[in-house]
Amino acid sequence: MKDFYFDCAATTRRKPAQVREAMINFYDHIGCSPGRGGYECSLDASRIVLNTRLSMGKLFNFDKTENIILTHNITYAMNMILRGLLKPGDHVVTTTMEHNAVIRPLNDLVKNNKIEVDYIKGDAQGYVSAEAIKDAIRENTKAVITTHASNVTGTILPIEEIARVVEETNAFYIVDGAQTAGSHFIDLKALPIDIFAFTGHKGLYGPTGTGGFIIKDEAAKDMDALIQGGTGSISDRDFQPDFLPDKFESGTTNTIGIAGLGAGVDFILDKGIVNIYNKKKSLTEYFLRKLEKVEGVTVYGPKNSNIQTSTISVGIKDVDLGQISFMLDDQFNIMTRSGLHCAPYAHQTIGTFPEGTLRFSFDIFNSEEEVDYVIDSLNKLLNA
Amino acid sequence: MKDFYFDCAATTRRKPAQVREAMINFYDHIGCSPGRGGYECSLDASRIVLNTRLSMGKLFNFDKTENIILTHNITYAMNMILRGLLKPGDHVVTTTMEHNAVIRPLNDLVKNNKIEVDYIKGDAQGYVSAEAIKDAIRENTKAVITTHASNVTGTILPIEEIARVVEETNAFYIVDGAQTAGSHFIDLKALPIDIFAFTGHKGLYGPTGTGGFIIKDEAAKDMDALIQGGTGSISDRDFQPDFLPDKFESGTTNTIGIAGLGAGVDFILDKGIVNIYNKKKSLTEYFLRKLEKVEGVTVYGPKNSNIQTSTISVGIKDVDLGQISFMLDDQFNIMTRSGLHCAPYAHQTIGTFPEGTLRFSFDIFNSEEEVDYVIDSLNKLLNA
Repeated sequence: MKDFYFDCAATTRRKPAQVREAMINFYDHIGCSPGRGGYECSLDASRIVLNTRLSMGKLFNFDKTENIILTHNITYAMNMILRGLLKPGDHVVTTTMEHNAVIRPLNDLVKNNKIEVDYIKGDAQGYVSAEAIKDAIRENTKAVITTHASNVTGTILPIEEIARVVEETNAFYIVDGAQTAGSHFIDLKALPIDIFAFTGHKGLYGPTGTGGFIIKDEAAKDMDALIQGGTGSISDRDFQPDFLPDKFESGTTNTIGIAGLGAGVDFILDKGIVNIYNKKKSLTEYFLRKLEKVEGVTVYGPKNSNIQTSTISVGIKDVDLGQISFMLDDQFNIMTRSGLHCAPYAHQTIGTFPEGTLRFSFDIFNSEEEVDYVIDSLNKLLNA
Repeated sequence: MKDFYFDCAATTRRKPAQVREAMINFYDHIGCSPGRGGYECSLDASRIVLNTRLSMGKLFNFDKTENIILTHNITYAMNMILRGLLKPGDHVVTTTMEHNAVIRPLNDLVKNNKIEVDYIKGDAQGYVSAEAIKDAIRENTKAVITTHASNVTGTILPIEEIARVVEETNAFYIVDGAQTAGSHFIDLKALPIDIFAFTGHKGLYGPTGTGGFIIKDEAAKDMDALIQGGTGSISDRDFQPDFLPDKFESGTTNTIGIAGLGAGVDFILDKGIVNIYNKKKSLTEYFLRKLEKVEGVTVYGPKNSNIQTSTISVGIKDVDLGQISFMLDDQFNIMTRSGLHCAPYAHQTIGTFPEGTLRFSFDIFNSEEEVDYVIDSLNKLLNA
């Protein structure tokens, strides 16, 4: 039976064919660790890592490929950034729309009396304005951190405007791009974003075990390396190198994953990110229009594909959402995610805490026919 | 032309067939993130992660699978352990035979005035006795950290004896098993080792992007979570969960890698770790005997397969080792690694700093015929 996968905000499941090919090619024909000097296949591995950085640089219009840091996933990236950058006494401005990958490390730093954090509350649709961010910035604000888009409601935050606001202060601007990298063009040359964090296994179509961040020089200098160890470089030194990417990349990299990530990014470059954006936008519009007509369903978030991603959260009157999510899979092979999506403050913000929402998230491999099937199935379930 | 891969101490390159199969099976038929509840393929992903933990538990005779923590690699594991466990004022005992994955985070903690470290110097063969460790332990020693075997000389340290010594104190004993996991039986039920760190892509035959640590309850309670974020559990909480493995596993796991790692460990269980140990031991003996007869070559380390792994470091009179390593690859397709192997203190200990050594490291997929070819090639190069 055909699968209907609507959990792309967690992980994209259908990947472009070249991702599989790149991984198998690495596995079968390279299979060793990148290294400086040494034997040919080690150089091949280094070349693959470099190519992935070059593709990432193209996608985000960012020339300094050595400033593209590859990590295990975006959660590791966020911890490396927050714990590496924030010092005792620092103040942080963030929003209630963040994921636990940001909330939990920040609250841990607060608990240990190291920093202060202001969470700017989103409106009923999950939106936070640049003005609200501006008003919260203080003399000792070291960093402003916002998601680009909520993983619960799909709400897109105005990162361009926030970047301009933060640029006027001493703070660094950190963007969590988990939900937008690969489908929204983010011009890191033009925009004063200091650190852009991404995950590899969602919109970039890489496998799990990949992610990272793109960091500008000033922030990189200020940021300590949380993870230290062997870098294959200046091995005579018993301290971490201070050049990039080595400062922030220790231990054997997930080279097979990085090979897949590079192929995923190349797919996006070939396809054109604007085309990907438009395809998702149009499907989001279609889905939103159809959902409006399902009785008993409340759609949260902007309900406007101009200002939201292809992630749609709903509530349903008088039913248990976990049960509906289970039945959608069990009876109709439709995969969704219900609950709090590791973003408790976002649900508090939109009024769906602690019961959560039922989330549909999709990508270019989904179709209007699939959306029709989802809507039909929902109707069948709710009118059964 | 056939490849002769002798860099297994960095990454094993030839993996058992079932590792490739497990990864492709995950990629083609599962492809989603593990989660609590939710749809069927997400449960399949959870099951695969659990199976890997179960296999790991079998291999190391350790029942509490939730205490088996999976990370990006052993370097991440070591940073999570050291930075999570060590508090200001703590004292650490370690050895000069450690990898930079231990040295660099420790020295960073020292630099920030947080801890004190004593490096116990190995003897000329890289050996450190349990007595020397015992003598260095103080009232405030929080942890003793030793490698199980040097990645430079293959020297095996007496972890059983050290464990008994540390057991009599208040310190935790942390073992770096990067070079031995998968070929040396380590009985974590019988031995008072508090934390055993491993990497997935060496002797355990998993892919890159895998590694972790097995931690006992007392240490787990004492250790803070360095990496915090979404765990898929108690998502209503804005602090990290305190139960295992969630406390130390945040963000989307490298599930495809974990599938491969599980298959690698199952291969070892099927084959029998004693058989793997014996095969490597016999090949090490063979290699050592052959090397003795190559003129101009100095073998470092124990030169005794009873007390060393299948890693052999050599110096060669009057030649540049990097050049020899390059020529071995270029002319004979033999892959080795020359230099300092991210272990500067080990080279200082055995007297090969800063020029380093030429390292041959191999596993059960190598053969006596391959060793013969390496020896022939070395002779040809040195007598050319």
